[in-house]
Amino acid sequence: MTTELKPVMNADELLKHWQGHRRLTRRTIDAFPEDKLFQFSVGGMRPFADMAFEFINMAMPIVNGVSSGKWEKYVGEKPTTKADLLRLWDEQTAAIDEAFPKIPAHRFAETDTAFGFYTNTGTGMFEYAIDNEIHHRGQGYVYLRALAIEPPHFWERE
Amino acid sequence: MTTELKPVMNADELLKHWQGHRRLTRRTIDAFPEDKLFQFSVGGMRPFADMAFEFINMAMPIVNGVSSGKWEKYVGEKPTTKADLLRLWDEQTAAIDEAFPKIPAHRFAETDTAFGFYTNTGTGMFEYAIDNEIHHRGQGYVYLRALAIEPPHFWERE
Repeated sequence: MTTELKPVMNADELLKHWQGHRRLTRRTIDAFPEDKLFQFSVGGMRPFADMAFEFINMAMPIVNGVSSGKWEKYVGEKPTTKADLLRLWDEQTAAIDEAFPKIPAHRFAETDTAFGFYTNTGTGMFEYAIDNEIHHRGQGYVYLRALAIEPPHFWERE
Repeated sequence: MTTELKPVMNADELLKHWQGHRRLTRRTIDAFPEDKLFQFSVGGMRPFADMAFEFINMAMPIVNGVSSGKWEKYVGEKPTTKADLLRLWDEQTAAIDEAFPKIPAHRFAETDTAFGFYTNTGTGMFEYAIDNEIHHRGQGYVYLRALAIEPPHFWERE
């Protein structure tokens, strides 16, 4: 028996899934006190603001790269306040919602090499971006717990 | 412009994606010293063995539930040694590989209620299981870093 021909997700659902995670990540950023967001960490790891800025660095460049085949790095300074980080986050949310639906259908299954070193299908690249965000956000939850702050509910995505 | 009709993933790819994550989780379990796996934590959270056992509790019950519509809890004791946990993990890997391809195509898009309280599509339930595993495994990475142990490479899934 093969599973080859059972479609399980379309682009609209993938975008919805991603933006659901991004809403949760936004709440996680917001749960940190300003100073802890930029300074606190456990085990010598990065502060959560650095992780959040990594997500921003990946998101639109991957949307644009999968869409066009042109891989251009994110250009912009890392925000230095929570308010600026959240403002940039929200701008990216709108930019993703605008650009993602325009990705040509064939690009999701097509294999490409992002930024000269990361080879995957279009879908695989989005999965990697989402999984990377979940992975590091989970680490942000440990930071919050270590700070005795209740993290947002993992299952809430609206 | 709508993305509705762009398929981005089939069941075979979803299974491969999940098992790739499960291989990484297995390496994460294995990276812990025996005693730390069952006892160490940060911020009052659970030890990583408890998180790993949670993944086991979710995996096959969700495969079986999405497949059949029958939602039956995992039955089995929590392993008390790393060797036993890894053995159980490998049994589950084989069980998933055996059962997942038999899931009827229509069940991925169908909405169901798992265990009497969790309503989602079949695909959504698998996404939740995978995302939950990534989330808590990321927390296990912080435990490892706090123990000065290098975690496995996040991007390696083979």
